[in-house]
Amino acid sequence: MRAFRIVVAAHGDLADAFVSAARLIGGDIEDLQAVGLRPDDSPESFGERLAAACPDDRPLLILTDLVGGTPHNVALVVARGLPTATVISGVNLAVLVEAATCTDALDAGTVERLVALGRSALTDASSLAASRSP
Amino acid sequence: MRAFRIVVAAHGDLADAFVSAARLIGGDIEDLQAVGLRPDDSPESFGERLAAACPDDRPLLILTDLVGGTPHNVALVVARGLPTATVISGVNLAVLVEAATCTDALDAGTVERLVALGRSALTDASSLAASRSP
Repeated sequence: MRAFRIVVAAHGDLADAFVSAARLIGGDIEDLQAVGLRPDDSPESFGERLAAACPDDRPLLILTDLVGGTPHNVALVVARGLPTATVISGVNLAVLVEAATCTDALDAGTVERLVALGRSALTDASSLAASRSP
Repeated sequence: MRAFRIVVAAHGDLADAFVSAARLIGGDIEDLQAVGLRPDDSPESFGERLAAACPDDRPLLILTDLVGGTPHNVALVVARGLPTATVISGVNLAVLVEAATCTDALDAGTVERLVALGRSALTDASSLAASRSP
Protein backbone atom coordinates (compact mmCIF):
# COMPACT_ATOMS: atom_id res chain seq x y z
CA MET A 1 0.00 0.00 0.00
CA ARG A 2 1.21 3.45 -0.85
CA ALA A 3 2.07 5.65 2.15
CA PHE A 4 0.60 8.81 0.62
CA ARG A 5 -2.36 10.05 -1.37
CA ILE A 6 -1.98 11.52 -4.87
CA VAL A 7 -4.07 14.35 -6.31
CA VAL A 8 -3.58 15.58 -9.87
CA ALA A 9 -4.55 19.26 -10.32
CA ALA A 10 -4.65 20.50 -13.90
CA HIS A 11 -6.47 22.51 -16.58
CA GLY A 12 -9.71 21.22 -18.07
CA ASP A 13 -9.87 17.47 -18.61
CA LEU A 14 -6.14 16.98 -18.20
CA ALA A 15 -6.29 15.87 -14.55
CA ASP A 16 -8.98 13.24 -15.26
CA ALA A 17 -7.15 12.07 -18.38
CA PHE A 18 -3.89 11.61 -16.45
CA VAL A 19 -5.66 9.48 -13.86
CA SER A 20 -7.46 7.43 -16.53
CA ALA A 21 -4.23 6.90 -18.47
CA ALA A 22 -2.40 5.82 -15.32
CA ARG A 23 -5.18 3.29 -14.65
CA LEU A 24 -5.01 2.03 -18.24
CA ILE A 25 -1.36 1.22 -17.54
CA GLY A 26 -1.32 0.36 -13.85
CA GLY A 27 -4.77 -1.09 -13.31
CA ASP A 28 -6.89 -0.15 -10.32
CA ILE A 29 -4.89 2.51 -8.47
CA GLU A 30 -6.21 3.58 -5.07
CA ASP A 31 -5.87 6.96 -3.36
CA LEU A 32 -5.49 8.76 -6.66
CA GLN A 33 -7.81 11.63 -7.46
CA ALA A 34 -8.14 14.23 -10.21
CA VAL A 35 -9.28 17.83 -9.77
CA GLY A 36 -9.68 19.71 -13.05
CA LEU A 37 -10.00 23.47 -13.50
CA ARG A 38 -13.30 24.02 -15.34
CA PRO A 39 -13.79 26.95 -17.71
CA ASP A 40 -16.34 28.48 -15.31
CA ASP A 41 -14.17 28.00 -12.23
CA SER A 42 -12.81 30.86 -10.18
CA PRO A 43 -9.58 30.25 -8.26
CA GLU A 44 -11.81 30.12 -5.17
CA SER A 45 -14.24 27.49 -6.49
CA PHE A 46 -11.36 25.40 -7.81
CA GLY A 47 -9.59 25.80 -4.47
CA GLU A 48 -12.65 24.54 -2.60
CA ARG A 49 -12.81 21.37 -4.71
CA LEU A 50 -9.07 20.86 -4.45
CA ALA A 51 -9.08 21.33 -0.67
CA ALA A 52 -11.96 18.86 -0.37
CA ALA A 53 -9.85 16.30 -2.25
CA CYS A 54 -6.94 16.87 0.13
CA PRO A 55 -7.85 15.61 3.60
CA ASP A 56 -5.12 16.03 6.18
CA ASP A 57 -5.11 12.42 7.39
CA ARG A 58 -2.13 11.15 5.39
CA PRO A 59 0.84 12.56 3.50
CA LEU A 60 -0.20 13.97 0.16
CA LEU A 61 1.48 14.45 -3.20
CA ILE A 62 -0.17 17.05 -5.46
CA LEU A 63 0.94 16.85 -9.09
CA THR A 64 0.20 20.02 -11.06
CA ASP A 65 0.39 20.66 -14.78
CA LEU A 66 2.07 24.05 -15.13
CA VAL A 67 3.93 26.50 -12.90
CA GLY A 68 2.07 29.81 -13.03
CA GLY A 69 -1.25 28.28 -14.01
CA THR A 70 -4.27 28.49 -11.72
CA PRO A 71 -4.26 24.79 -10.73
CA HIS A 72 -0.63 25.06 -9.66
CA ASN A 73 -1.02 28.39 -7.88
CA VAL A 74 -4.07 27.19 -5.98
CA ALA A 75 -2.35 23.90 -5.13
CA LEU A 76 0.49 25.80 -3.49
CA VAL A 77 -2.01 27.67 -1.32
CA VAL A 78 -3.84 24.46 -0.37
CA ALA A 79 -0.54 22.68 0.35
CA ARG A 80 0.60 25.50 2.61
CA GLY A 81 -2.18 24.53 5.02
CA LEU A 82 -1.20 20.86 5.00
CA PRO A 83 2.02 20.05 6.84
CA THR A 84 2.62 16.79 4.97
CA ALA A 85 1.77 17.92 1.42
CA THR A 86 4.30 18.12 -1.41
CA VAL A 87 3.65 19.76 -4.79
CA ILE A 88 5.46 18.59 -7.91
CA SER A 89 4.79 20.69 -11.00
CA GLY A 90 5.02 19.73 -14.67
CA VAL A 91 3.40 16.34 -14.26
CA ASN A 92 3.95 13.80 -17.00
CA LEU A 93 2.67 10.25 -17.16
CA ALA A 94 6.02 8.81 -16.06
CA VAL A 95 6.11 10.69 -12.76
CA LEU A 96 2.45 9.87 -12.11
CA VAL A 97 2.87 6.14 -12.77
CA GLU A 98 6.05 6.04 -10.69
CA ALA A 99 4.36 7.88 -7.82
CA ALA A 100 1.29 5.65 -8.05
CA THR A 101 3.39 2.51 -7.67
CA CYS A 102 5.71 3.94 -5.02
CA THR A 103 5.92 2.06 -1.73
CA ASP A 104 8.35 4.43 0.00
CA ALA A 105 7.50 7.21 2.42
CA LEU A 106 6.99 10.63 0.83
CA ASP A 107 10.24 12.09 2.13
CA ALA A 108 12.75 14.38 0.46
CA GLY A 109 14.60 11.47 -1.13
CA THR A 110 11.42 10.07 -2.66
CA VAL A 111 10.39 13.46 -4.05
CA GLU A 112 13.86 13.96 -5.51
CA ARG A 113 13.75 10.52 -7.11
CA LEU A 114 10.28 11.14 -8.61
CA VAL A 115 11.38 14.48 -10.07
CA ALA A 116 14.54 12.92 -11.52
CA LEU A 117 12.58 10.06 -13.04
CA GLY A 118 9.97 12.36 -14.56
CA ARG A 119 12.67 14.53 -16.05
CA SER A 120 14.65 11.64 -17.50
CA ALA A 121 11.44 10.35 -19.13
CA LEU A 122 11.11 13.64 -21.00
CA THR A 123 13.67 13.17 -23.73
CA ASP A 124 14.46 13.42 -27.41
CA ALA A 125 13.48 9.88 -28.30
CA SER A 126 14.43 10.27 -31.94
CA SER A 127 18.09 10.62 -31.05
CA LEU A 128 17.78 7.76 -28.57
CA ALA A 129 16.27 5.55 -31.25
CA ALA A 130 18.92 6.60 -33.76
CA SER A 131 21.76 5.89 -31.35
CA ARG A 132 20.34 2.42 -30.71
CA SER A 133 20.09 1.54 -34.40
CA PRO A 134 22.71 -0.89 -35.71
CA MET B 1 3.56 30.90 -37.92
CA ARG B 2 5.15 27.81 -36.49
CA ALA B 3 7.54 26.01 -38.84
CA PHE B 4 6.42 22.55 -37.81
CA ARG B 5 3.30 20.55 -37.02
CA ILE B 6 2.70 19.04 -33.58
CA VAL B 7 0.96 15.73 -32.88
CA VAL B 8 0.37 14.48 -29.34
CA ALA B 9 0.20 10.67 -29.11
CA ALA B 10 -0.94 9.27 -25.77
CA HIS B 11 -3.08 6.77 -23.88
CA GLY B 12 -6.86 7.19 -23.77
CA ASP B 13 -8.09 10.76 -23.50
CA LEU B 14 -4.70 12.13 -22.50
CA ALA B 15 -3.75 13.35 -25.98
CA ASP B 16 -7.05 15.23 -26.45
CA ALA B 17 -6.85 16.65 -22.94
CA PHE B 18 -3.32 17.96 -23.53
CA VAL B 19 -4.44 19.72 -26.70
CA SER B 20 -7.52 21.18 -24.98
CA ALA B 21 -5.47 22.37 -22.00
CA ALA B 22 -2.91 23.99 -24.30
CA ARG B 23 -5.73 25.81 -26.07
CA LEU B 24 -7.22 26.92 -22.74
CA ILE B 25 -3.88 28.60 -22.07
CA GLY B 26 -2.67 29.60 -25.52
CA GLY B 27 -5.92 30.22 -27.37
CA ASP B 28 -6.49 28.95 -30.88
CA ILE B 29 -3.38 26.92 -31.73
CA GLU B 30 -3.05 25.74 -35.32
CA ASP B 31 -1.34 22.63 -36.62
CA LEU B 32 -1.78 20.81 -33.33
CA GLN B 33 -3.47 17.43 -33.33
CA ALA B 34 -4.17 14.69 -30.79
CA VAL B 35 -4.19 10.96 -31.44
CA GLY B 36 -5.31 8.87 -28.48
CA LEU B 37 -4.89 5.14 -28.00
CA ARG B 38 -8.38 3.75 -27.49
CA PRO B 39 -9.01 0.67 -25.33
CA ASP B 40 -10.06 -1.29 -28.44
CA ASP B 41 -7.08 -0.17 -30.52
CA SER B 42 -4.42 -2.53 -31.77
CA PRO B 43 -0.97 -1.08 -32.38
CA GLU B 44 -1.86 -1.34 -36.07
CA SER B 45 -5.14 0.56 -35.89
CA PHE B 46 -3.54 3.22 -33.69
CA GLY B 47 -0.61 3.41 -36.11
CA GLU B 48 -2.96 3.99 -39.04
CA ARG B 49 -4.64 6.93 -37.29
CA LEU B 50 -1.31 8.32 -36.15
CA ALA B 51 0.20 8.06 -39.63
CA ALA B 52 -2.86 9.78 -41.10
CA ALA B 53 -2.27 12.67 -38.69
CA CYS B 54 1.35 12.92 -39.80
CA PRO B 55 1.53 14.07 -43.43
CA ASP B 56 5.03 14.43 -44.82
CA ASP B 57 4.65 17.99 -46.06
CA ARG B 58 6.28 19.83 -43.15
CA PRO B 59 8.58 19.09 -40.23
CA LEU B 60 6.74 17.32 -37.46
CA LEU B 61 7.12 17.09 -33.70
CA ILE B 62 5.42 14.08 -32.09
CA LEU B 63 5.01 14.38 -28.32
CA THR B 64 4.36 11.03 -26.62
CA ASP B 65 3.31 10.26 -23.08
CA LEU B 66 5.49 7.37 -21.98
CA VAL B 67 8.56 5.54 -23.23
CA GLY B 68 7.64 1.89 -23.67
CA GLY B 69 3.92 2.53 -24.07
CA THR B 70 2.11 1.72 -27.31
CA PRO B 71 1.61 5.37 -28.36
CA HIS B 72 5.33 6.00 -28.01
CA ASN B 73 6.44 2.78 -29.65
CA VAL B 74 4.11 3.29 -32.61
CA ALA B 75 5.18 6.95 -32.89
CA LEU B 76 8.80 5.85 -33.27
CA VAL B 77 7.79 3.54 -36.12
CA VAL B 78 5.75 6.27 -37.84
CA ALA B 79 8.55 8.80 -37.36
CA ARG B 80 11.09 6.43 -38.90
CA GLY B 81 9.27 6.84 -42.22
CA LEU B 82 9.26 10.63 -42.00
CA PRO B 83 12.66 12.27 -42.54
CA THR B 84 11.73 15.49 -40.74
CA ALA B 85 9.91 14.03 -37.71
CA THR B 86 11.17 14.28 -34.14
CA VAL B 87 9.73 12.38 -31.17
CA ILE B 88 9.92 13.81 -27.66
CA SER B 89 8.66 11.47 -24.95
CA GLY B 90 7.29 12.27 -21.50
CA VAL B 91 5.17 15.21 -22.65
CA ASN B 92 4.05 17.67 -20.02
CA LEU B 93 2.00 20.81 -20.50
CA ALA B 94 5.08 23.05 -20.35
CA VAL B 95 6.83 21.40 -23.30
CA LEU B 96 3.59 21.36 -25.30
CA VAL B 97 2.83 25.05 -24.70
CA GLU B 98 6.43 26.00 -25.44
CA ALA B 99 6.43 23.94 -28.65
CA ALA B 100 3.06 25.36 -29.68
CA THR B 101 4.33 28.92 -29.39
CA CYS B 102 7.75 28.20 -30.92
CA THR B 103 8.70 30.22 -33.99
CA ASP B 104 12.08 28.58 -34.58
CA ALA B 105 12.89 25.81 -37.01
CA LEU B 106 12.65 22.30 -35.59
CA ASP B 107 16.40 21.71 -35.51
CA ALA B 108 18.58 20.00 -32.92
CA GLY B 109 18.95 23.20 -30.90
CA THR B 110 15.20 23.74 -30.72
CA VAL B 111 14.57 20.15 -29.66
CA GLU B 112 17.27 20.39 -26.99
CA ARG B 113 15.76 23.63 -25.71
CA LEU B 114 12.24 22.15 -25.58
CA VAL B 115 13.47 19.11 -23.65
CA ALA B 116 15.40 21.30 -21.20
CA LEU B 117 12.40 23.54 -20.66
CA GLY B 118 10.02 20.63 -20.11
CA ARG B 119 12.43 19.08 -17.61
CA SER B 120 12.97 22.29 -15.68
CA ALA B 121 9.16 22.72 -15.42
CA LEU B 122 8.97 19.35 -13.65
CA THR B 123 10.13 20.28 -10.19
CA ASP B 124 9.54 20.06 -6.46
CA ALA B 125 7.49 23.22 -6.18
CA SER B 126 7.08 22.89 -2.43
CA SER B 127 10.78 23.47 -1.89
CA LEU B 128 10.75 26.28 -4.46
CA ALA B 129 7.88 27.95 -2.64
CA ALA B 130 9.59 27.44 0.72
CA SER B 131 12.86 28.89 -0.51
CA ARG B 132 11.00 31.94 -1.81
CA SER B 133 9.20 32.58 1.47
CA PRO B 134 10.49 35.50 3.50
